[in-house]
Amino acid sequence: MKPRVSVLTLAVDDLKKSLDFYKNGLGLPTEGIIGEEYDNGAVAFFDLQYGVKLGIWGRESLANEANVPTSPRSSAEFTIGHNVASKREVDEVMQQAEAAGAEITDHAKHTFWGGYSGHFLDLDGHLWEIVWNPEWELED
Amino acid sequence: MKPRVSVLTLAVDDLKKSLDFYKNGLGLPTEGIIGEEYDNGAVAFFDLQYGVKLGIWGRESLANEANVPTSPRSSAEFTIGHNVASKREVDEVMQQAEAAGAEITDHAKHTFWGGYSGHFLDLDGHLWEIVWNPEWELED
Repeated sequence: MKPRVSVLTLAVDDLKKSLDFYKNGLGLPTEGIIGEEYDNGAVAFFDLQYGVKLGIWGRESLANEANVPTSPRSSAEFTIGHNVASKREVDEVMQQAEAAGAEITDHAKHTFWGGYSGHFLDLDGHLWEIVWNPEWELED
Repeated sequence: MKPRVSVLTLAVDDLKKSLDFYKNGLGLPTEGIIGEEYDNGAVAFFDLQYGVKLGIWGRESLANEANVPTSPRSSAEFTIGHNVASKREVDEVMQQAEAAGAEITDHAKHTFWGGYSGHFLDLDGHLWEIVWNPEWELED
Protein backbone atom coordinates (compact mmCIF):
# COMPACT_ATOMS: atom_id res chain seq x y z
CA MET A 1 0.00 0.00 0.00
CA LYS A 2 1.37 3.37 -0.98
CA PRO A 3 1.30 6.22 1.53
CA ARG A 4 -1.55 8.10 -0.08
CA VAL A 5 -4.98 9.46 0.81
CA SER A 6 -6.93 10.48 -2.28
CA VAL A 7 -10.31 11.47 -0.90
CA LEU A 8 -11.75 12.05 2.54
CA THR A 9 -15.50 11.56 2.33
CA LEU A 10 -17.69 12.81 5.16
CA ALA A 11 -21.11 11.35 5.91
CA VAL A 12 -23.74 14.09 6.05
CA ASP A 13 -27.42 14.24 6.89
CA ASP A 14 -28.37 16.92 4.36
CA LEU A 15 -26.21 17.13 1.26
CA LYS A 16 -27.47 20.56 0.19
CA LYS A 17 -26.95 22.14 3.58
CA SER A 18 -23.46 20.69 3.82
CA LEU A 19 -22.66 21.85 0.31
CA ASP A 20 -23.69 25.35 1.31
CA PHE A 21 -21.56 25.15 4.45
CA TYR A 22 -18.39 24.04 2.69
CA LYS A 23 -18.86 25.94 -0.56
CA ASN A 24 -20.34 29.25 0.52
CA GLY A 25 -19.49 29.23 4.20
CA LEU A 26 -15.89 28.02 4.06
CA GLY A 27 -15.28 28.87 0.40
CA LEU A 28 -13.98 25.50 -0.81
CA PRO A 29 -14.04 25.05 -4.61
CA THR A 30 -16.54 22.52 -5.97
CA GLU A 31 -18.60 21.67 -9.02
CA GLY A 32 -21.54 21.04 -6.69
CA ILE A 33 -23.67 17.93 -6.41
CA ILE A 34 -23.04 15.27 -9.05
CA GLY A 35 -24.27 11.72 -9.54
CA GLU A 36 -27.92 12.42 -8.73
CA GLU A 37 -28.94 10.16 -11.61
CA TYR A 38 -27.74 7.12 -9.64
CA ASP A 39 -29.26 5.47 -6.57
CA ASN A 40 -27.15 6.58 -3.61
CA GLY A 41 -24.97 8.43 -6.12
CA ALA A 42 -25.51 12.09 -5.17
CA VAL A 43 -22.23 13.42 -3.82
CA ALA A 44 -20.13 16.59 -3.90
CA PHE A 45 -16.35 16.93 -4.00
CA PHE A 46 -14.13 19.84 -3.08
CA ASP A 47 -10.70 20.17 -4.65
CA LEU A 48 -7.97 20.45 -2.07
CA GLN A 49 -4.25 20.90 -2.57
CA TYR A 50 -2.33 18.54 -4.85
CA GLY A 51 -5.39 16.77 -6.16
CA VAL A 52 -6.60 15.55 -2.76
CA LYS A 53 -10.38 15.80 -2.47
CA LEU A 54 -12.86 16.31 0.32
CA GLY A 55 -16.22 14.65 -0.32
CA ILE A 56 -19.64 14.89 1.27
CA TRP A 57 -22.11 12.06 0.84
CA GLY A 58 -25.39 11.09 2.44
CA ARG A 59 -24.92 9.09 5.62
CA GLU A 60 -27.12 6.22 4.46
CA SER A 61 -25.53 6.11 1.02
CA LEU A 62 -22.06 5.88 2.51
CA ALA A 63 -23.07 3.15 4.97
CA ASN A 64 -24.84 1.25 2.22
CA GLU A 65 -21.87 1.42 -0.15
CA ALA A 66 -19.40 0.29 2.49
CA ASN A 67 -21.76 -2.30 3.95
CA VAL A 68 -21.56 -0.98 7.50
CA PRO A 69 -24.48 -0.16 9.81
CA THR A 70 -25.50 3.45 10.23
CA SER A 71 -24.95 4.67 13.76
CA PRO A 72 -25.57 7.78 15.84
CA ARG A 73 -23.18 10.61 15.00
CA SER A 74 -19.88 10.54 16.84
CA SER A 75 -17.58 13.54 16.96
CA ALA A 76 -14.63 11.81 18.59
CA GLU A 77 -13.68 9.56 15.67
CA PHE A 78 -11.21 11.84 13.88
CA THR A 79 -10.08 15.38 13.34
CA ILE A 80 -9.34 17.08 10.06
CA GLY A 81 -6.29 19.25 10.61
CA HIS A 82 -6.12 22.44 8.57
CA ASN A 83 -2.77 24.15 8.98
CA VAL A 84 -2.43 27.86 8.37
CA ALA A 85 0.47 30.29 8.26
CA SER A 86 -0.16 32.46 11.32
CA LYS A 87 -2.10 32.80 14.56
CA ARG A 88 -4.14 35.54 12.97
CA GLU A 89 -5.17 33.16 10.21
CA VAL A 90 -6.31 30.61 12.83
CA ASP A 91 -8.58 33.28 14.31
CA GLU A 92 -9.87 34.30 10.91
CA VAL A 93 -10.76 30.76 9.85
CA MET A 94 -12.41 30.05 13.21
CA GLN A 95 -14.54 33.18 12.76
CA GLN A 96 -15.37 32.21 9.21
CA ALA A 97 -16.45 28.74 10.35
CA GLU A 98 -18.59 30.11 13.16
CA ALA A 99 -20.28 32.54 10.78
CA ALA A 100 -20.96 29.60 8.44
CA GLY A 101 -22.79 27.73 11.19
CA ALA A 102 -20.04 25.60 12.72
CA GLU A 103 -20.08 24.85 16.43
CA ILE A 104 -16.92 26.03 18.15
CA THR A 105 -15.96 23.43 20.77
CA ASP A 106 -12.55 24.80 21.61
CA HIS A 107 -11.69 28.44 21.02
CA ALA A 108 -8.25 29.05 19.57
CA LYS A 109 -5.49 29.02 22.17
CA HIS A 110 -1.81 28.25 22.56
CA THR A 111 -1.02 24.55 22.65
CA PHE A 112 1.40 22.68 24.89
CA TRP A 113 3.66 21.96 21.89
CA GLY A 114 4.16 25.59 20.98
CA GLY A 115 1.44 26.09 18.39
CA TYR A 116 -1.94 27.79 18.37
CA SER A 117 -5.17 26.03 17.45
CA GLY A 118 -8.93 25.81 17.81
CA HIS A 119 -11.56 23.21 17.00
CA PHE A 120 -15.01 23.32 15.45
CA LEU A 121 -17.69 20.85 14.41
CA ASP A 122 -19.25 20.98 10.97
CA LEU A 123 -23.03 20.59 10.56
CA ASP A 124 -22.74 16.82 11.04
CA GLY A 125 -20.46 16.88 14.03
CA HIS A 126 -17.23 16.26 12.11
CA LEU A 127 -14.29 17.80 13.87
CA TRP A 128 -11.87 20.27 12.31
CA GLU A 129 -8.76 21.63 13.95
CA ILE A 130 -7.40 24.91 12.62
CA VAL A 131 -3.72 24.99 13.47
CA TRP A 132 -0.73 27.24 13.35
CA ASN A 133 2.41 25.17 13.82
CA PRO A 134 5.57 27.28 13.79
CA GLU A 135 7.62 24.21 12.79
CA TRP A 136 5.47 23.27 9.81
CA GLU A 137 6.30 25.13 6.63
CA LEU A 138 3.32 25.50 4.34
CA GLU A 139 3.42 25.46 0.57
CA ASP A 140 0.67 27.27 -1.26
CA MET B 1 -10.08 29.29 4.34
CA LYS B 2 -7.75 27.70 1.85
CA PRO B 3 -8.66 24.36 0.28
CA ARG B 4 -6.23 22.30 2.27
CA VAL B 5 -6.20 19.29 4.58
CA SER B 6 -2.88 18.93 6.38
CA VAL B 7 -3.47 16.02 8.74
CA LEU B 8 -6.19 13.44 9.19
CA THR B 9 -6.03 12.19 12.76
CA LEU B 10 -7.85 9.00 13.69
CA ALA B 11 -9.00 8.25 17.24
CA VAL B 12 -7.73 4.86 18.37
CA ASP B 13 -8.20 2.70 21.43
CA ASP B 14 -4.69 1.27 21.55
CA LEU B 15 -1.96 3.41 20.06
CA LYS B 16 0.64 0.63 19.89
CA LYS B 17 -1.69 -1.83 18.18
CA SER B 18 -2.75 0.81 15.66
CA LEU B 19 0.86 1.77 15.05
CA ASP B 20 1.64 -1.85 14.29
CA PHE B 21 -1.37 -2.08 11.95
CA TYR B 22 -0.49 1.00 9.92
CA LYS B 23 3.32 0.70 10.07
CA ASN B 24 3.93 -3.02 9.77
CA GLY B 25 0.61 -4.20 8.40
CA LEU B 26 -0.01 -1.55 5.77
CA GLY B 27 3.57 -0.36 5.45
CA LEU B 28 3.05 3.37 5.96
CA PRO B 29 6.22 5.32 6.84
CA THR B 30 6.41 6.73 10.38
CA GLU B 31 8.84 7.76 13.09
CA GLY B 32 6.63 5.91 15.57
CA ILE B 33 5.08 7.25 18.74
CA ILE B 34 6.17 10.72 19.77
CA GLY B 35 5.07 13.13 22.47
CA GLU B 36 4.85 10.60 25.27
CA GLU B 37 6.42 13.12 27.63
CA TYR B 38 3.21 15.20 27.55
CA ASP B 39 -0.18 14.46 29.08
CA ASN B 40 -2.40 13.29 26.23
CA GLY B 41 0.55 13.93 23.92
CA ALA B 42 1.41 10.44 22.66
CA VAL B 43 0.65 10.31 18.96
CA ALA B 44 2.05 8.83 15.76
CA PHE B 45 2.09 10.34 12.28
CA PHE B 46 2.48 8.68 8.90
CA ASP B 47 3.86 10.67 5.97
CA LEU B 48 1.54 10.59 3.00
CA GLN B 49 1.98 12.16 -0.42
CA TYR B 50 2.83 15.85 -0.74
CA GLY B 51 3.34 16.40 2.97
CA VAL B 52 -0.16 15.33 4.01
CA LYS B 53 -0.10 13.29 7.19
CA LEU B 54 -2.21 10.56 8.72
CA GLY B 55 -2.22 10.60 12.53
CA ILE B 56 -3.34 8.17 15.19
CA TRP B 57 -4.11 9.43 18.66
CA GLY B 58 -5.80 8.00 21.73
CA ARG B 59 -9.56 8.40 21.63
CA GLU B 60 -9.73 10.13 25.01
CA SER B 61 -6.81 12.42 24.22
CA LEU B 62 -8.43 13.54 20.98
CA ALA B 63 -11.79 14.16 22.65
CA ASN B 64 -10.12 16.01 25.50
CA GLU B 65 -8.11 18.25 23.19
CA ALA B 66 -11.10 19.13 21.04
CA ASN B 67 -13.45 19.45 23.99
CA VAL B 68 -16.01 16.98 22.67
CA PRO B 69 -17.54 14.01 24.52
CA THR B 70 -16.20 10.55 23.80
CA SER B 71 -18.81 8.33 22.21
CA PRO B 72 -19.21 4.74 21.06
CA ARG B 73 -17.31 4.00 17.86
CA SER B 74 -19.14 4.76 14.66
CA SER B 75 -17.99 3.42 11.30
CA ALA B 76 -20.38 5.42 9.16
CA GLU B 77 -18.87 8.87 9.76
CA PHE B 78 -16.38 8.98 6.90
CA THR B 79 -14.34 6.97 4.46
CA ILE B 80 -10.69 7.39 3.62
CA GLY B 81 -10.35 6.87 -0.10
CA HIS B 82 -7.09 5.33 -1.27
CA ASN B 83 -6.84 5.36 -5.04
CA VAL B 84 -4.63 2.89 -6.85
CA ALA B 85 -3.58 2.36 -10.44
CA SER B 86 -5.28 -0.93 -11.31
CA LYS B 87 -7.89 -3.47 -10.29
CA ARG B 88 -5.11 -5.84 -9.38
CA GLU B 89 -3.70 -3.28 -6.98
CA VAL B 90 -7.12 -2.95 -5.32
CA ASP B 91 -7.11 -6.69 -4.70
CA GLU B 92 -3.53 -6.61 -3.42
CA VAL B 93 -4.18 -3.81 -0.93
CA MET B 94 -7.39 -5.46 0.27
CA GLN B 95 -5.45 -8.68 0.88
CA GLN B 96 -2.70 -6.79 2.64
CA ALA B 97 -5.25 -5.06 4.90
CA GLU B 98 -6.99 -8.31 5.74
CA ALA B 99 -3.67 -9.95 6.59
CA ALA B 100 -2.89 -6.98 8.84
CA GLY B 101 -6.10 -7.51 10.82
CA ALA B 102 -8.57 -5.26 9.03
CA GLU B 103 -12.21 -6.30 8.77
CA ILE B 104 -13.37 -6.52 5.18
CA THR B 105 -16.92 -5.17 5.01
CA ASP B 106 -17.24 -5.04 1.24
CA HIS B 107 -15.09 -7.23 -0.98
CA ALA B 108 -13.71 -5.51 -4.05
CA LYS B 109 -16.17 -5.33 -6.91
CA HIS B 110 -17.08 -3.24 -9.93
CA THR B 111 -18.90 -0.02 -9.06
CA PHE B 112 -21.87 1.61 -10.77
CA TRP B 113 -19.67 4.48 -11.96
CA GLY B 114 -17.23 2.26 -13.80
CA GLY B 115 -14.54 1.75 -11.18
CA TYR B 116 -13.54 -1.12 -8.90
CA SER B 117 -13.38 -0.83 -5.13
CA GLY B 118 -13.61 -2.53 -1.77
CA HIS B 119 -13.92 -1.37 1.83
CA PHE B 120 -12.32 -2.38 5.09
CA LEU B 121 -12.38 -1.22 8.70
CA ASP B 122 -9.19 -0.58 10.61
CA LEU B 123 -8.80 -1.82 14.19
CA ASP B 124 -10.96 1.05 15.47
CA GLY B 125 -13.71 0.77 12.93
CA HIS B 126 -12.47 3.55 10.64
CA LEU B 127 -13.49 2.93 7.08
CA TRP B 128 -11.10 2.80 4.14
CA GLU B 129 -12.09 2.45 0.52
CA ILE B 130 -9.48 1.09 -1.88
CA VAL B 131 -10.41 2.33 -5.32
CA TRP B 132 -9.41 2.00 -8.92
CA ASN B 133 -10.97 4.85 -10.89
CA PRO B 134 -10.15 4.68 -14.60
CA GLU B 135 -10.78 8.43 -14.91
CA TRP B 136 -8.45 9.45 -12.11
CA GLU B 137 -4.83 9.76 -13.11
CA LEU B 138 -2.46 9.09 -10.25
CA GLU B 139 0.85 10.80 -9.70
CA ASP B 140 3.45 8.92 -7.74
